[in-house]
Amino acid sequence: MQIMINEIRRWMKEAGKNIKESLKSEEMKVSTKTDRKDLVTNIDKQTQAYLIEQIIAFDPDAKILGEESGKDKLQDLSGRVFIIDPIDGTMNFVLEHENFCIMIGVYEDGQGVLGFVYDVMREKFLWGGRDIGVYLNEERVKAPTDLSLDQGLLGINASMYRLNSSNAQKMGERAMGVRMSGCAGLELIAMALGTRVGYVSNLAPWDYAAGGVLIEALGMKMSNINGESLKIDGREWFMAGTPTAYDEMLRLSKQA
Amino acid sequence: MQIMINEIRRWMKEAGKNIKESLKSEEMKVSTKTDRKDLVTNIDKQTQAYLIEQIIAFDPDAKILGEESGKDKLQDLSGRVFIIDPIDGTMNFVLEHENFCIMIGVYEDGQGVLGFVYDVMREKFLWGGRDIGVYLNEERVKAPTDLSLDQGLLGINASMYRLNSSNAQKMGERAMGVRMSGCAGLELIAMALGTRVGYVSNLAPWDYAAGGVLIEALGMKMSNINGESLKIDGREWFMAGTPTAYDEMLRLSKQA
Repeated sequence: MQIMINEIRRWMKEAGKNIKESLKSEEMKVSTKTDRKDLVTNIDKQTQAYLIEQIIAFDPDAKILGEESGKDKLQDLSGRVFIIDPIDGTMNFVLEHENFCIMIGVYEDGQGVLGFVYDVMREKFLWGGRDIGVYLNEERVKAPTDLSLDQGLLGINASMYRLNSSNAQKMGERAMGVRMSGCAGLELIAMALGTRVGYVSNLAPWDYAAGGVLIEALGMKMSNINGESLKIDGREWFMAGTPTAYDEMLRLSKQA
Repeated sequence: MQIMINEIRRWMKEAGKNIKESLKSEEMKVSTKTDRKDLVTNIDKQTQAYLIEQIIAFDPDAKILGEESGKDKLQDLSGRVFIIDPIDGTMNFVLEHENFCIMIGVYEDGQGVLGFVYDVMREKFLWGGRDIGVYLNEERVKAPTDLSLDQGLLGINASMYRLNSSNAQKMGERAMGVRMSGCAGLELIAMALGTRVGYVSNLAPWDYAAGGVLIEALGMKMSNINGESLKIDGREWFMAGTPTAYDEMLRLSKQA
């Protein structure tokens, strides 16, 4: 396991270095996917290609689920699966040149084993798993206090908030404040570090796989918006929180 | 003018250093003002007291308008007025220990002359004015591209977005994405640095005085939500944008 952890961290650091360099060279080519707000760049694609190459060299038998280039569907989750998002928060990457991250989650027979979330520009690398604990760079992360919803900040997806999906507005009202960062990985890092009590969004597996392993390892809860297990297959309304905030959010969601 | 600029920067750096130290010592005492989400800490108060002391020593004739301790109202704006927010984003300061800033705006007979916004934890100090240009730390900031609303990210206040005040939801839909940071100063810094096309919120004078000077010096526009001049007196629905985004936002607001 330690070898795999070191390898994954090395790939992601290398990918981060390349991303930083490509930001400086300003050779970004942006194109759209499903709509004008669904962006992908040549750098997302290069980064995913690089990570896939490393994974295949390291473990030729592993499956790979990733956001770009036709890797976004699997038959099943048996065996070892690497779930990767080469750049989570591509919109921020393009427009802000920060507030994005690289993510890799390692699943074994459908169970999250390891998670890696790298906030490239701030050099905050969160990684770990249930059996080894969670680390920020080299430092062990303590489990955050189990705050209630009204004691902390809540990350919410803009359109779910606007449309009041699953009572998202009431969740936001109950919280001390609503935050929207445009990057699922950063929201989940913030939960792991205790600066968010929860997060509600519409996510694909690569958006929550890595961060989800980390927050669960720290005693937090996540599920789809109805409290059912995430399918790790296609987009779902996602909900996560400290144990207490999560229960309140689920209660509000069920009242919707 | 240069002497005043150097003095103000020195005070704010000193205040920032003290704030960082008090975060480490964890001696924060939080209390509420108008409601449970309107926070103030001993550190806000100490910082405002320190800044006021410096201002009075530097210019005993100047007026002071500030968020804390009974300095929140002036008879008129004649002469020189220092408009200060010792900690903008107090909620973030308390819950995140980042994403807050210290702000000072200098007004002469109601006109913004100098603005200073200091993102303490990231050590990003934006300062300048119409006559001297805008600087990030020591480096001159170029005027951002005049992006349209659909080319950039829009900062929106959560309750205005939720309630669709002045068509805020349509503004958000038009933009590439909606962001909520919980700190007006950081939103205005982001506009100055070209990572936001606009910002809509419900602000008091100390929330926009400093940042407003900076974005206007860079060719951007700001006003109340109806396109009228800000009164610099009490809370108002605030709107700012690149020239093109601002015009679109004003059109949408008038359709509300």
